[in-house]
Amino acid sequence: MVIKIGGNIIDDAAKLASFLEDFANIAANKILVHGGGKLATKLAEQLGVEQQLVDGRRITDSETLKIVTMVYAGQINKNIVAQLQARHCNAIGLCGADGDAILAHKRHHPVIDYGYVGDVDAINAPLIKSLLDQHIAIVFAPITHDQQGQLLNTNADTIAQELAKGLSHDYEVSLVYSFEKSGVLLDANDDSTVIREITASYYQQLKAKQKIFSGMIPKLDNAFMALNNGVKKVIIGKAEEIGQLINGKTGTAIVQ
Amino acid sequence: MVIKIGGNIIDDAAKLASFLEDFANIAANKILVHGGGKLATKLAEQLGVEQQLVDGRRITDSETLKIVTMVYAGQINKNIVAQLQARHCNAIGLCGADGDAILAHKRHHPVIDYGYVGDVDAINAPLIKSLLDQHIAIVFAPITHDQQGQLLNTNADTIAQELAKGLSHDYEVSLVYSFEKSGVLLDANDDSTVIREITASYYQQLKAKQKIFSGMIPKLDNAFMALNNGVKKVIIGKAEEIGQLINGKTGTAIVQ
Repeated sequence: MVIKIGGNIIDDAAKLASFLEDFANIAANKILVHGGGKLATKLAEQLGVEQQLVDGRRITDSETLKIVTMVYAGQINKNIVAQLQARHCNAIGLCGADGDAILAHKRHHPVIDYGYVGDVDAINAPLIKSLLDQHIAIVFAPITHDQQGQLLNTNADTIAQELAKGLSHDYEVSLVYSFEKSGVLLDANDDSTVIREITASYYQQLKAKQKIFSGMIPKLDNAFMALNNGVKKVIIGKAEEIGQLINGKTGTAIVQ
Repeated sequence: MVIKIGGNIIDDAAKLASFLEDFANIAANKILVHGGGKLATKLAEQLGVEQQLVDGRRITDSETLKIVTMVYAGQINKNIVAQLQARHCNAIGLCGADGDAILAHKRHHPVIDYGYVGDVDAINAPLIKSLLDQHIAIVFAPITHDQQGQLLNTNADTIAQELAKGLSHDYEVSLVYSFEKSGVLLDANDDSTVIREITASYYQQLKAKQKIFSGMIPKLDNAFMALNNGVKKVIIGKAEEIGQLINGKTGTAIVQ
């Protein structure tokens, strides 16, 4: 079970605690990938480090990299781990540099310089397997490295997808993208319009009709990429309903 | 080999790189425990979080705990790990909450409220052993937890000592306290006055004559505690000479 939780959950202590309670109770081998929420933006503001966004994506200069490393791999990651331990769920918090868990390279883009942003090359399945086999849940912060000493800010959805794909040789992997909404919605403002199942062809239709909220497209592309590479199930839905999501009672199932 | 590096090394990129180069080349199973240096104090200043010191010890209120968690377990820990990976030394960065590696409780002091400061109860030797057996070096940030969800700021010298003691049932452990000075000095301002060997009785004499710099006393107390509890060797000396320290060519050897 590879579960990504979105930023808005992390910013809300009560919702995060409720999510972690449910996560701790999942019996399967499990990995949690967290994003960063507004904490990094807030810290950047406090420190007077200006944040540059291009097409909604954060440009990671060296000062911003320090901030996201501190916030994601330090503050958020270690607090999640401590809270899981308090719920009798043995967990270990890692970034991609730890044990060479996630290898990446600095993004080369023909037009935009994203700065210290990583694109994932591979995951270290044996290390991850050795921890899961000891019944340790792994909590990943969205920071990777290039094996040359450089840390890289990396999209958490992509990390979740890469982990799910990379582990699908050894396990039957389910990938869950959980966030503040109830699933993929036909009307982005109406939480009751959850699409219960999306096939590849239906996805093409929805995209053609511009029925898919643009922020959802990378998540769905990631989902189909995972399914095409051995992942058994992909589910998108509300973080507070993680139990029902896993059981297929709520959320959107992405199927081939 | 359990090696503690002091704060001044961490603040100096060139000295840190040279230390990590030597550390990467140590053939034995190895653990690095790092302090925090001036980075946490600097960040606290930038954020306007006032730092309270009582008897030279930092009082850790909740804002300060956030800062040390970000700086120690995030920025410093992950950068050290990435730099070791670049030197072909497979390393994993942990705090005490990760895998329940170091269990502690919040310090209860009859007079001073130290805030979120931890005193170590136990280390999780099986977890540490399983990583060392995979030839992974472990890099510890000086943050522990109380198993109730609370992170705790914890003295790095003490963590190093507890790790050395706790692992001495399974390994022949050497404990190295490395920092900016060449060893325990007879004259704190003269780096050529290294005492090459200190026995327990000589330590009592030196203390009685007030020949020991007060900042060194907790380190030496930790050293003798370790020796009395199964640790084979304790060495104190310059971080940039780690190879010679281990070979006994420089530094101060603490012996029973």
